[in-house]
Amino acid sequence: MAPPAAMEAQEAASRNAFANDVSAASHISRVTVVGSGNWGSVAAKLIASNTLKLASFHDEVRMWVFEETLPSGEKLTDVINRTNENVKYLPGIKLGKNVIADPDLDNAVRDANMLVFVTPHQFMEGICKRLVGKIKEGVEAISLIKGMEVKMEGPCMISNLISELLGINCCVLMGANIANEIAVEKFSEATVGYKANREIAEKWVQLFSTPYFMVTPVQDVEGVELCGTLKNVVALAAGFVDGLEMGNNTKAAIMRIGLREMRAFSKLLFSSVKDSTFFESCGVADVITTCLGGRNRKVAEAFAKNGGKRSFDELEAEMLQGQKLQGVSTAREVYEVLSHRGWLELFPLFATVHEICIGRLPPSAIVEYSEHKPNFALVEGSAQYY
Amino acid sequence: MAPPAAMEAQEAASRNAFANDVSAASHISRVTVVGSGNWGSVAAKLIASNTLKLASFHDEVRMWVFEETLPSGEKLTDVINRTNENVKYLPGIKLGKNVIADPDLDNAVRDANMLVFVTPHQFMEGICKRLVGKIKEGVEAISLIKGMEVKMEGPCMISNLISELLGINCCVLMGANIANEIAVEKFSEATVGYKANREIAEKWVQLFSTPYFMVTPVQDVEGVELCGTLKNVVALAAGFVDGLEMGNNTKAAIMRIGLREMRAFSKLLFSSVKDSTFFESCGVADVITTCLGGRNRKVAEAFAKNGGKRSFDELEAEMLQGQKLQGVSTAREVYEVLSHRGWLELFPLFATVHEICIGRLPPSAIVEYSEHKPNFALVEGSAQYY
Repeated sequence: MAPPAAMEAQEAASRNAFANDVSAASHISRVTVVGSGNWGSVAAKLIASNTLKLASFHDEVRMWVFEETLPSGEKLTDVINRTNENVKYLPGIKLGKNVIADPDLDNAVRDANMLVFVTPHQFMEGICKRLVGKIKEGVEAISLIKGMEVKMEGPCMISNLISELLGINCCVLMGANIANEIAVEKFSEATVGYKANREIAEKWVQLFSTPYFMVTPVQDVEGVELCGTLKNVVALAAGFVDGLEMGNNTKAAIMRIGLREMRAFSKLLFSSVKDSTFFESCGVADVITTCLGGRNRKVAEAFAKNGGKRSFDELEAEMLQGQKLQGVSTAREVYEVLSHRGWLELFPLFATVHEICIGRLPPSAIVEYSEHKPNFALVEGSAQYY
Repeated sequence: MAPPAAMEAQEAASRNAFANDVSAASHISRVTVVGSGNWGSVAAKLIASNTLKLASFHDEVRMWVFEETLPSGEKLTDVINRTNENVKYLPGIKLGKNVIADPDLDNAVRDANMLVFVTPHQFMEGICKRLVGKIKEGVEAISLIKGMEVKMEGPCMISNLISELLGINCCVLMGANIANEIAVEKFSEATVGYKANREIAEKWVQLFSTPYFMVTPVQDVEGVELCGTLKNVVALAAGFVDGLEMGNNTKAAIMRIGLREMRAFSKLLFSSVKDSTFFESCGVADVITTCLGGRNRKVAEAFAKNGGKRSFDELEAEMLQGQKLQGVSTAREVYEVLSHRGWLELFPLFATVHEICIGRLPPSAIVEYSEHKPNFALVEGSAQYY
């Protein structure tokens, strides 16, 4: 039998261990992915591989799935939970056994401390409104949603929408991320944009990072999020150059000018936006990926090949099976902002892309900047613009 | 007859006009292009189109040509002067009647106020030594030469070599410039790097700019010049990704990391180097062009396709008809600097490219950065490095 002192010490140790357990348990985060399309499924896979390894996260990753009945008559959620595959949006890829598909949004978010939003952007307002009062206190959110609307009064940042409607902090994750390539574990990078809390950003970085998916945090949520939308306008410009068969040299120049206008536009809208953000994956790398592949580039190439004689609507219908191009509407929205604020001359590429899209200028106008030349002198020495 | 006062005024006006003429004549610049290869010939064409239009330049552009006898038995300079074409290095393109080929270097530079250097980099030291005492006082120079050596004690900036050996100021012009595409007037851009004198930089900008060739001055001669050399290392990395068939997403990530290492390396070598330089044509655009086309990329792709089993020497001999790849030697030189200064861990991509080139690592190592991960945390918050 142990002497009293030793027993006391043992009891104390045991009490401490219990206290530590309780305290640790309360710090273990539960993650829910809201959305289960192509990118949402890949995000769930990345996250699920990490929650298994990291003690600070609960193993299970819940994924809200908009329920569908498959041709086989089965429910999509049932098939995902039986096979660990999203057979509809990411066939052939195991998500991990710890990914649990849940068709009930309220139930899916109920216990979560960390919410990952990855739905089409037009659904977010409705989803947020439905979630009011349904989530835990102190929940942290991240948005993987690209393609916000750019309204006259400013862009509708999805991170802001989530923050305001739910009263929670919201980061963003953007970058050169072709879902199917990351699904097969090809090397890629991403950028987490955060507002103020670096620790939370690091937690998201930890949750997403794998040896083939490298995530960097930057304190510039607006800059990171704007990249994900504005790059689509640049992709149209690159597509025009491809359609005109002007070669890689011209295409590189147009991509560079596009990146510069993304940066200048973001900085005019939000003075907090940092130049360095555009060197991150969300900036230069996503511009490169989107201008090399991607549907905006592809349809714009077809548009230019046809000399602008077949409309984007027509080409979209033919080439995209009913999907609409983000870039064309973003280009129009950006043009309205530029026009309204008297900034058109500062953004010859953005302005020209829209005017080509609506047939006011021929596709070849994408490389005719000589008359805009004076504005380019602003590049150096006007730090507030460039 | 005019009253005396009026006559006096007329006489005075006439004297002033004469004085202005003399003063104007002394300010009219004569340009000589030293070099007449592919890019040199295109540079002469660009310049010659502008000297005809701009009153501040003498129409004639002298081009020093390393004399050769063509298979026809004619001298190359004679054919250029008769046909206005460099039939050997830029066939099919009219250089302009005001381009005068001159086989005599001393004679070609004698009256020049502005010297454009565009020869292979290994010839520059010899040329400069020959030119000592042969050039006018106050001559301004610009170097279009990419691919300096990066020695242990620092890179051998060509602009610096020219400056020191000839005791003159020297700017640089770099960018995404595929000579044959600019020759056929496809849209492109370039960057003029200058040390201190903005007015001189503007003069070079004026001399090179056309509606299809847009030139931007930046006060960062070292940053601009280093881009032209370091991008070749990035092109090898991109070529490895192509050979491994890893797709555009991975390639974009590798190009981004490469651009970041170019920036970090340049800033470590010269604290004056500016981040913004890497957003210019010499930075991001030249990286894009070089990683999409170009021989460094192409041979690196073949190297990776062969699993590194056939050496660069062998592939070069087979694919490049005796030309050597700039990237392979630059990668080695950069590696020596990194190794010597203890910076290897800060530059995983540069280091890996060299180790792949010499067979120490397999080509697939280009996307294996996980063990280097901690260093990437330096990206943000360590302004002196990134």
